Amino acid sequence: MTNHEFYMDIALNNARATKGQTDPNPLVGSVIVNHNRIVGLGTHLQAGEPHAEIHALRMAGEQARGGTIYVTLEPCSHHGRTGPCAEAIVQAGIKKVVIATLDPNPIVSGNGVSILKKAGIEVEIGIREAEAIKMNEVFNTYIVQKRPFITLKTGITLDGKVASHTLSSKWITSEEARKDVHQLRTEHMAILTGINTVLKDNPALTARIPNGRNPLRIVMDSSLRIPLDYQIVQDKQANTWIFTTKNHDRHKRKELEGFGVTVINTGDSTVVDPGKVITYLGEHGISSLLIEAGGVINASFIENRLVDKTIIYMAPKLIGGKHAPTFLEGTGIDKMEHAIELKDIEITQIGKDFKWTGYPAYRDMRDV
Amino acid sequence: MTNHEFYMDIALNNARATKGQTDPNPLVGSVIVNHNRIVGLGTHLQAGEPHAEIHALRMAGEQARGGTIYVTLEPCSHHGRTGPCAEAIVQAGIKKVVIATLDPNPIVSGNGVSILKKAGIEVEIGIREAEAIKMNEVFNTYIVQKRPFITLKTGITLDGKVASHTLSSKWITSEEARKDVHQLRTEHMAILTGINTVLKDNPALTARIPNGRNPLRIVMDSSLRIPLDYQIVQDKQANTWIFTTKNHDRHKRKELEGFGVTVINTGDSTVVDPGKVITYLGEHGISSLLIEAGGVINASFIENRLVDKTIIYMAPKLIGGKHAPTFLEGTGIDKMEHAIELKDIEITQIGKDFKWTGYPAYRDMRDV
Repeated sequence: MTNHEFYMDIALNNARATKGQTDPNPLVGSVIVNHNRIVGLGTHLQAGEPHAEIHALRMAGEQARGGTIYVTLEPCSHHGRTGPCAEAIVQAGIKKVVIATLDPNPIVSGNGVSILKKAGIEVEIGIREAEAIKMNEVFNTYIVQKRPFITLKTGITLDGKVASHTLSSKWITSEEARKDVHQLRTEHMAILTGINTVLKDNPALTARIPNGRNPLRIVMDSSLRIPLDYQIVQDKQANTWIFTTKNHDRHKRKELEGFGVTVINTGDSTVVDPGKVITYLGEHGISSLLIEAGGVINASFIENRLVDKTIIYMAPKLIGGKHAPTFLEGTGIDKMEHAIELKDIEITQIGKDFKWTGYPAYRDMRDV
Repeated sequence: MTNHEFYMDIALNNARATKGQTDPNPLVGSVIVNHNRIVGLGTHLQAGEPHAEIHALRMAGEQARGGTIYVTLEPCSHHGRTGPCAEAIVQAGIKKVVIATLDPNPIVSGNGVSILKKAGIEVEIGIREAEAIKMNEVFNTYIVQKRPFITLKTGITLDGKVASHTLSSKWITSEEARKDVHQLRTEHMAILTGINTVLKDNPALTARIPNGRNPLRIVMDSSLRIPLDYQIVQDKQANTWIFTTKNHDRHKRKELEGFGVTVINTGDSTVVDPGKVITYLGEHGISSLLIEAGGVINASFIENRLVDKTIIYMAPKLIGGKHAPTFLEGTGIDKMEHAIELKDIEITQIGKDFKWTGYPAYRDMRDV
C-alpha cells in the first residue's frame, strides 16, 4: 500500500461512516497531510452543511499551507452554501490534491480540477477509484441517469427455486437473513413488488427493525386487482404507489385514492412497462429502489437491463420440481453466450444462508 | 489445539497424502510419540502392504516402548498380511493409544480397542473424529452399506438453470471448473448419466487430464435408445454399462453387446429404478459413483435419498426463463419445511465460478 492509498483509505472510511445521513448528497471524506502528519480530517455530515474539504481545512487551520489534501470525490466548483471547495483549497495554500474519483455529473466533472490546476496546484486522480465509485453507487446513478439505483433482492434454494410446486415458500431463508432484508428495506427509498406477490402474501413491505425508516411501497398492478382491505392499502405505515394501465377500473381507483393510495396510470395496454415506472420514480426524487418481486417482474427488469445490483440470499437446501418457480422467469436468453454475467461477486454467510452480491456486467461501473 | 490434536493432524495429513492409492482400503495415518518427541510415522500405502501402525512401529523400533501411538482409524483385530495391529501395538510396549475414529464396520468395530484395553493400555477415542470420518467417506459408505458413495455433480447458473429455454448449455461454467470436473471423474470408479443427456451431447464421459483413470460409464436407458455410433459405445476408452427395463429391444441389446457394452435388465416396467442400479453396483465392487445427469435423473436419486454428497459449480450469470430446465426437476417437495437441507457447506472459487460442496442432512455422517 502506498502512502496515497493509506491516507485515501482513512478518507473513505470516514465517508462510509455517515452512510444514510447525507441524502441526497454523496458520501465524501477528506484528509490533510503536512510533513507526514495528519493535520486535518473532514467528512460531509448532512445536506446543507459544509463539504468534507471545508471541515478538514478548518481543522488544519494554518497547518494546511504547503500540505496535501486527500478527498474521495472531486472538490466542487459551484457556489453552494460553503462556496466552491476548489477555491477554498487554493486559498488555504494547499500544494497537492489527491482525488479518488471525478464528479460523476458530466456537466461539472473536471471543473474543480481545472480551478486547482490553474492555481498551480498539483493534482493526482484515481487513487482507490473503484472503492470511491462503489461507495456512492446510488448517488452516482441518480445524478447521472436521473433514475433510482435499482437493487434486485431475492431468496432462493440452492436449486434456484423461490417456492415448491405447490407454491409453499415460508420460509426459504433463515431468520438472520430475513432480518438482513429489513435492513436493506430501510436503506432504500422505495420497494417494488408485483400484484401476484401482494395477492399471495398480503405483505406489509415495511422495515421491521428498531428506528427503521419504511420505504415507499410500489406495486405494479395492471388492472388494479389489489383488495381494499390489504395491509399496504390500510396500515398507513408508509406511502403506497400503484402503477396501473389504462385498462383499470375508475371506481376502484377512486376507492384506493380514498385510502390515501396514489394510483399512476402508465397508459400501457396490457402490462405495466418497467421503464416507465423507473422514469417516473426518477422524476419524483426516488434515488434508490429495492425490487422484491416474483420471477415474472424480476425478468422484466433484468431483460430491460434495469437492474444495477443483485442481492441473492441462498439457502443451502434442495426442493426440486419441474414446475417449482424460480426467481427469474419470463422467456430468458436463447443462447448460453448471451447470459448476463455478474461481476464483483461477494459472498457472505448470514445464519445458515449465503448472501451473494453482484453487479450485472452490462452496467459499466465507470459510467454511472 | 491440544497436543493430541497436533499429533493427530500430522497422522491425518499423512493419510490424506495417499488419496487414490489405497483402494479398496481406507486412508490411515499413524504417529508414535515418546517423551515429547516423534519417534515413528506411518501411513498405509497400498492394499496388501502393512497398515499404518506397523510402519510407525518399525520406524520407532525400541523407542516405541512406553510411548503413545496416534492412529486415524481403530487398529485392526484381524489376522491379515501383517497380523492384527492391535496385538503388534501391545507387543511393542505402547502405553497409550489415541484413536480418531472406530472401525466403521459394525462387525469388527471396537474389537481392536478391546484387545488394547485387555492388555492394560490406556485408550482415548474421538480426537479429530469428524475429519477422520470425512477423509474416508467413500470407504465407510461402501464397507457399511455395501453400495457406492454417491456424489451428485452439476453446473448451474446463479438462477438455478442448467440450460436456456432453447436447451443451449455450452458453456455454463468456466474452463477451470470443467477441468475440475475431469479431476472428479478420475477420482470416481463410475460415472452415471441418463439417455437424454447422452442423446443431447454424445459425451465421452472420460477424465481428460494427464494420466487420468477413466471411470466406468453407466447410462440409464429404459428402452435402449442409445445410437450404436455414439462415443461411449464405440470409443473403447472405458467400459460402458447400460441399465434398461424389460421393455428393451433384444436385437438392439445384441448389437450393443457386440461392441463390448454390458446391458443390464433391471426388470422394471417403465423407468429404471435408481435403487436397483445402486444395489447392482455395490454387488459388483463399485465403491464410488459420480452422477452427471439431467434434472429428472438427479431428482430420482435425491427423492430416493441416495445422494451422499453434492458438488455444484455455480456460474455467476443469469439466463432466466420459465421453461429453462433446472438441475433438480421431478415433482419436488410439497412444503418448504420438507426441503432437503445440505450440511457442512464449503464454497471455493474456481476461475469465475463457485464450487459448493455439501452433504444432505438425511445422511447421518456417523452412521456411514
